[in-house]
Amino acid sequence: MESVTERSREELLELKEEVDKAYEEFKGMNLALDMSRGKPAPSQVDCANAMLKEMTDYHTKGGMDVRNYGVLEGIPDIRELFGELLDIPMDQIIIGGNASLNLMFDAMMRLYVFGTMGEKPWGQLEKVKFLCPSPGYDRHFTICETLGMEMIPIEMTATGPDMDQVEKLAAEDEAIKGIWCVPKYSNPQGICYSDETVDRLASMKTAAKDFKIFWDNAYGVHPIFEDVKVKNILDACEEAGTKNRPYYFFSTSKISFPGAGVSLIAASDENIAEIKKIMNAQTIGYDKINQLRHVQFFQNAEGVRKHMQILADCMKPKFETVLHTLEKELAGSGLISWENPKGGYFVSVDVLPGCAKEVVRLAKEAGVVLTGAGATYPYGNDPKDSNLRIAPTYPTVEELQQAMDLFCICVKKAGIEKMLEK
Amino acid sequence: MESVTERSREELLELKEEVDKAYEEFKGMNLALDMSRGKPAPSQVDCANAMLKEMTDYHTKGGMDVRNYGVLEGIPDIRELFGELLDIPMDQIIIGGNASLNLMFDAMMRLYVFGTMGEKPWGQLEKVKFLCPSPGYDRHFTICETLGMEMIPIEMTATGPDMDQVEKLAAEDEAIKGIWCVPKYSNPQGICYSDETVDRLASMKTAAKDFKIFWDNAYGVHPIFEDVKVKNILDACEEAGTKNRPYYFFSTSKISFPGAGVSLIAASDENIAEIKKIMNAQTIGYDKINQLRHVQFFQNAEGVRKHMQILADCMKPKFETVLHTLEKELAGSGLISWENPKGGYFVSVDVLPGCAKEVVRLAKEAGVVLTGAGATYPYGNDPKDSNLRIAPTYPTVEELQQAMDLFCICVKKAGIEKMLEK
Repeated sequence: MESVTERSREELLELKEEVDKAYEEFKGMNLALDMSRGKPAPSQVDCANAMLKEMTDYHTKGGMDVRNYGVLEGIPDIRELFGELLDIPMDQIIIGGNASLNLMFDAMMRLYVFGTMGEKPWGQLEKVKFLCPSPGYDRHFTICETLGMEMIPIEMTATGPDMDQVEKLAAEDEAIKGIWCVPKYSNPQGICYSDETVDRLASMKTAAKDFKIFWDNAYGVHPIFEDVKVKNILDACEEAGTKNRPYYFFSTSKISFPGAGVSLIAASDENIAEIKKIMNAQTIGYDKINQLRHVQFFQNAEGVRKHMQILADCMKPKFETVLHTLEKELAGSGLISWENPKGGYFVSVDVLPGCAKEVVRLAKEAGVVLTGAGATYPYGNDPKDSNLRIAPTYPTVEELQQAMDLFCICVKKAGIEKMLEK
Repeated sequence: MESVTERSREELLELKEEVDKAYEEFKGMNLALDMSRGKPAPSQVDCANAMLKEMTDYHTKGGMDVRNYGVLEGIPDIRELFGELLDIPMDQIIIGGNASLNLMFDAMMRLYVFGTMGEKPWGQLEKVKFLCPSPGYDRHFTICETLGMEMIPIEMTATGPDMDQVEKLAAEDEAIKGIWCVPKYSNPQGICYSDETVDRLASMKTAAKDFKIFWDNAYGVHPIFEDVKVKNILDACEEAGTKNRPYYFFSTSKISFPGAGVSLIAASDENIAEIKKIMNAQTIGYDKINQLRHVQFFQNAEGVRKHMQILADCMKPKFETVLHTLEKELAGSGLISWENPKGGYFVSVDVLPGCAKEVVRLAKEAGVVLTGAGATYPYGNDPKDSNLRIAPTYPTVEELQQAMDLFCICVKKAGIEKMLEK
């Protein structure tokens, strides 16, 4: 559409009448759609149903019966599979429970109670600060907030976090203990870190000796339009002489079943030894039957990649619906900007400053629940009230088209009203 | 056999010759048996194999698809089942992952980092002490040791921990923050707490406001010879006005599959709210597919009880083998004493002071691995070097008979040698 931001007051009032009418029509449709979370659709999880077939062999390749106690680090079969998939030596991998979020929280708790490599436990420090590239994943921020950390938002660029900012802060303040990273198809913007970003994260000087990179590779094998290669942080840190800096997380939540998948933490040999020592007090080992179930279903790394292609085929029409509708309804309007993601789970948009909350409110009133405005920022506080996360995966294409039509109307309505306030 | 402890030196030397000969014969048999852990036998886990049949319905009674995110506290269906089984309102139950040990460790970590009900986090205290009824479960003690707590051993009586000791210590020292309890068929002695013990634990005065009972009801539905009723600590504390004192743990590790079961923590409404607030940062929810799998297999509380009867039938001949062999070979010898458990997973014996380690060493040299001597005491230190835990469940009856024959010879050999030292 033609630029809205350059229209006269009269033109805006005229447009508002039209938009209000369309909005009221939507309200009359009694929609009830939820686009708030990055949940796979039932049609996606159906693709993994064969994993719930009868399990007739309970043994690993090495002959271990998985129906009994033991094996803290997880069965070799699945560590080998993930090792191949992510290009990480299997000895640097510990398998966790049903979600990597749990491993992240537990890693943070260990740092608080035990510290790492002889440094003071974080729970005994006056102040702990964490760098939070924003917009980002709300559940990362919830961990920090729950622990009472001070979160420092870092701006995102097309190649990852603003590294000038990151380097400056990390070098000068020893209370800054780490950074959250979703390096590939980031939540919510779909940004992939450049090699330079990865290398700078690995090699930068940090005032804190125990600075940690929480590397949440949640979408590591989740391309939709293009498979991007992101440099492995473990390799980069090994090269830079900072091998104990990163904790690498991954899970099959968005590969097999959300909440019933398999997760992992990977790290340097020294970190793995330290983690296992404490983890040995926490558990005898995670669910090996589910680990074997995953191995039997996927067979190997190639099997995972093939499965992800099937899922990408489910998701592609949905992402296209979102992007085409934004393009058709709002391109050139000046009311919104967005990135075209190459993979992952979200489309991130920025509406006119001060309009994000209002868009969410309007959509909700007309029956479409969006991710709360601000949720993608530390403390739920988007200083510009501008960013919105669209999660296209759960609804069907038809529902999504309705929801996006409404969304575009809400963006127009909120934008025009904001402009008329002036 | 006739008392050994009252024999003359000559008689002992004669007996020693006989026992040494029998021991050497065993060494020649090249046994390789492991009785070190309380692991169910393959024949026991086989009984739950139907749980690994194809899952054709993925929905809870209420219609929720368990193959997706959500439900922090676990699906209602399984909370209802456990509620009925353990006589706990389902709203006071949160379902965990594959093992209750993990829930115990996490509960302790929360107390260290966040504290409870506004009291100072334990990680910020000079000193934290914990009461450890001994002999007890080594993994409880490992949690304490990992966290740097001071463990205070409490003697066990036939009705539970020595409550005079417990009450005195808890009342006078505010650094004492709690107590471990395995109230039914205790590990390793098979002791069941009397109602009086439960009531005294609930009503005793504690110097620490945030004194916690870690109530590990690991063998709550695991009778073998007699189903004993133990008073519910949640009820007792509710009556005594100390409802926030206990955390109640349970799991199906020794019901369905060890390491692939379902666990729970139950507590007062206030505790549950506090736990959920922090757990909400740790996870979106535990494995609901496995929860539903358990519900579909057991159907209801009665289904669990029936299954436990099947398992008891597997285990009974093994416990009888242990107890009959001890009786036949060593009753009246003065070299050993033991309790006849009514359920649970172990037979606990006390050999002559200073002989437990030697018995373990001798058995190992002849091919039978026992639980390490001292493992049942804090810091792995049995002050009398006398207690041994026999875990009869894993071997077959035939293997167990061999192992017990050897065990009895080792007890005689170590006992006689100890007496000859004098």
